Amino acid sequence: MLELVNFLQAKRRIRPYIHHTPLIRSDFLSERTGGEVWLKLENQQPTGSFKVRGALNKLGQLSEAEKAQGIVTASAGNHALGVAHAAAVLGLPQVDIFVPQTAPDAKLNKLRRFPITLHLAGQTYEDAHQAAANFAAQSGALEISAYDDLDVIVGQGTAGVEILADLPTAELIVVPVGGGGLVSGVATAVRHINPACHIIGVQPEASPAAQLSFAQGRAIDPYDHAPTIADGLAGGFGVRPFDLLRQHPPDIVLVSEAHIRQAILALLAEQQLVIEPSGATAVAPLLTGQVDVAGKTAVCILTGGNLAMNLLREIITQLPNY
Amino acid sequence: MLELVNFLQAKRRIRPYIHHTPLIRSDFLSERTGGEVWLKLENQQPTGSFKVRGALNKLGQLSEAEKAQGIVTASAGNHALGVAHAAAVLGLPQVDIFVPQTAPDAKLNKLRRFPITLHLAGQTYEDAHQAAANFAAQSGALEISAYDDLDVIVGQGTAGVEILADLPTAELIVVPVGGGGLVSGVATAVRHINPACHIIGVQPEASPAAQLSFAQGRAIDPYDHAPTIADGLAGGFGVRPFDLLRQHPPDIVLVSEAHIRQAILALLAEQQLVIEPSGATAVAPLLTGQVDVAGKTAVCILTGGNLAMNLLREIITQLPNY
Repeated sequence: MLELVNFLQAKRRIRPYIHHTPLIRSDFLSERTGGEVWLKLENQQPTGSFKVRGALNKLGQLSEAEKAQGIVTASAGNHALGVAHAAAVLGLPQVDIFVPQTAPDAKLNKLRRFPITLHLAGQTYEDAHQAAANFAAQSGALEISAYDDLDVIVGQGTAGVEILADLPTAELIVVPVGGGGLVSGVATAVRHINPACHIIGVQPEASPAAQLSFAQGRAIDPYDHAPTIADGLAGGFGVRPFDLLRQHPPDIVLVSEAHIRQAILALLAEQQLVIEPSGATAVAPLLTGQVDVAGKTAVCILTGGNLAMNLLREIITQLPNY
Repeated sequence: MLELVNFLQAKRRIRPYIHHTPLIRSDFLSERTGGEVWLKLENQQPTGSFKVRGALNKLGQLSEAEKAQGIVTASAGNHALGVAHAAAVLGLPQVDIFVPQTAPDAKLNKLRRFPITLHLAGQTYEDAHQAAANFAAQSGALEISAYDDLDVIVGQGTAGVEILADLPTAELIVVPVGGGGLVSGVATAVRHINPACHIIGVQPEASPAAQLSFAQGRAIDPYDHAPTIADGLAGGFGVRPFDLLRQHPPDIVLVSEAHIRQAILALLAEQQLVIEPSGATAVAPLLTGQVDVAGKTAVCILTGGNLAMNLLREIITQLPNY
């Protein structure tokens, strides 16, 4: 369905506007786990997360007519930033973005710097998504999904292409999973390049929609999740990600809120990296031992760095480890 | 005395082992100051600071006989990490490093991973320096200065070459100043490439040795500094840096401890960057208005990221801004 050439074309399409992000060895995680652990720093994208890859690949293929009719999207924050950045560099005239009122300041402050129309709608991603869908129906604007869109998925998958280009010996890639855009894109690209490279998806216990989807044989979206600090991973698992992965689903590991917090603190103290909860989720199961990488070359994708200061303050004062 | 070719040769010498670090535009600082403000991310070097540049340029030119006799150095932490990294990649057999007992854990933990002999000596850089000098006299090991050495200075200056390569329109570069290795290297390199580019040095009020040196017409080293969180900038200003700069001294600005703390917090909250006090010192005078960059293209060198967690905890809980 998706061939390697699709990912390579996407990489060429988005490359002028964003980074081939660094892949760095973590001495700390390597020592701790007995493996060779590397970190893919998607927090260093211009918007602070990988989401700009999919947004650029999607918006970069719109026709002039589609661009003229305006676009609308809903997001927990990082996809919104990706769309806003892509629209700015590509010169789209009208962009409406719906974000839940609960989105972290780190994301809202950055969004307000873009020439977009920002709508704060409801408490959850699903609320914002409903509002965006209504707006699209009324206005005729084109709705851009954050994850349930093949062009978006292919854009996210370019991160996987970069990982295997920089570290061809990677045996295992650990990917945070929310709606499924990143995990399905990365898994599809990586399996074309090296089918032996293993993909592990990680979700918060509070929102195990991917795990449930594979168990039940259907994409569960929306999903009524419990509260989680990993705002970017909360909610349902998309139909297109599900279809891409259903024949060979990745292992899905669930991590607790406490372990996500510990991963944030460890990345801050040991690596001097500011990583938001969704991104730190990839590291949590290595720290708990839920994913054993001893003797293996493993990559954790640190998907984003837009960490709210009030959450960081909480974590740094409440956890005694450092 | 030092020609452009020296810096270009240094750049070629060190390039295989370290990064041409990113130079990123700061939307936050640009908005705040009315200028175009860019950040040179030396915190992203493998050791977490720029010091590895000078260490590699120095050790990379030692003879086999000099390497065999062993080397010794003293450091507040980051130069030690630079020397340890350089010695590891260049294969030096014996390295003794003296660091004050007060060095931040962020630096000590990283140092302990290298195959070096680590000596904790005294409370200040000067104590460690005395111990290293005694060790050199007794053992015959070659002492490597952290800043008072032309090969080290030229290595640090490669950061300036990179800045003007990436941003030829830079009009002003703000550099944290301690012993003077970075500021003299960057100023010398930059003046060869674009003499109109202005260099501003920043010191903590607690340790104004460079400002006093230029005022008195002689290098003041050692200097009996007051307490400062900017451990990497505390102490004297070297003879060689002074000689390189005496004819055209850079403007020197002094910043308070409180303003250094605010700069650390602003970089964390607005840029998601973990920057240690010495590095944040470059940003402090832009936030206070002591350095006016309105209408100008300015670069702040963020020299390092090895921030102690107890200090970060203090700052994030005591400052109300975010």
